[in-house]
Amino acid sequence: MGPKGKAIYRAALEHWMTEREPGGPTGPGATVFIGTKPTMTYVFQVVAQLNSGIAPVVIRARGNAIGKAVDVAEVVRRRFLEGQVTVGAISIDTERLTNREGRDANVSAIAIPLTRTGPGPTAPAAPPG
Amino acid sequence: MGPKGKAIYRAALEHWMTEREPGGPTGPGATVFIGTKPTMTYVFQVVAQLNSGIAPVVIRARGNAIGKAVDVAEVVRRRFLEGQVTVGAISIDTERLTNREGRDANVSAIAIPLTRTGPGPTAPAAPPG
Repeated sequence: MGPKGKAIYRAALEHWMTEREPGGPTGPGATVFIGTKPTMTYVFQVVAQLNSGIAPVVIRARGNAIGKAVDVAEVVRRRFLEGQVTVGAISIDTERLTNREGRDANVSAIAIPLTRTGPGPTAPAAPPG
Repeated sequence: MGPKGKAIYRAALEHWMTEREPGGPTGPGATVFIGTKPTMTYVFQVVAQLNSGIAPVVIRARGNAIGKAVDVAEVVRRRFLEGQVTVGAISIDTERLTNREGRDANVSAIAIPLTRTGPGPTAPAAPPG
């Protein structure tokens, strides 16, 4: 595959990875897929979602992007929303993909759920009763 | 840094990453650090530890090796010890390191605890009573 093919492949991958599941797979949450953009791009996406009251925000990545997913979660909870975010149960998995040569390949995946627990800029918790 | 410096740095890193904590940080377990060797090298280390009855075996990695740590865990539990391994609570963290230029840098880290639950080749569970 030449540089042009690589660019097309990367664009397709990027498109796929930045798509979001409207409601998230588990209901009211949201999913942010980690791709090839800079780490801070995803950090801002996650912070924006958490600030809008969505919970949990699940950071998902496959293959090479797994390390970046951990970076995103750590930057969000230690720099931007320090003490205001809880990391949920992190899960790992294997997905079977058809790669660019048409062959099946196994790729590892990670899902890191973040929930905002501290005071957000939006709607404080309703009083009991 | 030239290629020779890089090789020395890599060797030092490799040495550090393949060291083991004798008893593991949590007591009776063991730790396998993921470095730059092939994935299967670490898979065999983890399988050997689990087969010897050690639990939990904690797979640890930092930075670029985080994706490989997930690969190792997935290959162990889906190919080599299918249905016999439970993944514990995965934790992520940030460590502060002094890098090769002498500057401090933050690096993400992951810890994946694996416990053997199925029948192992060693000591079956003692009968009750």
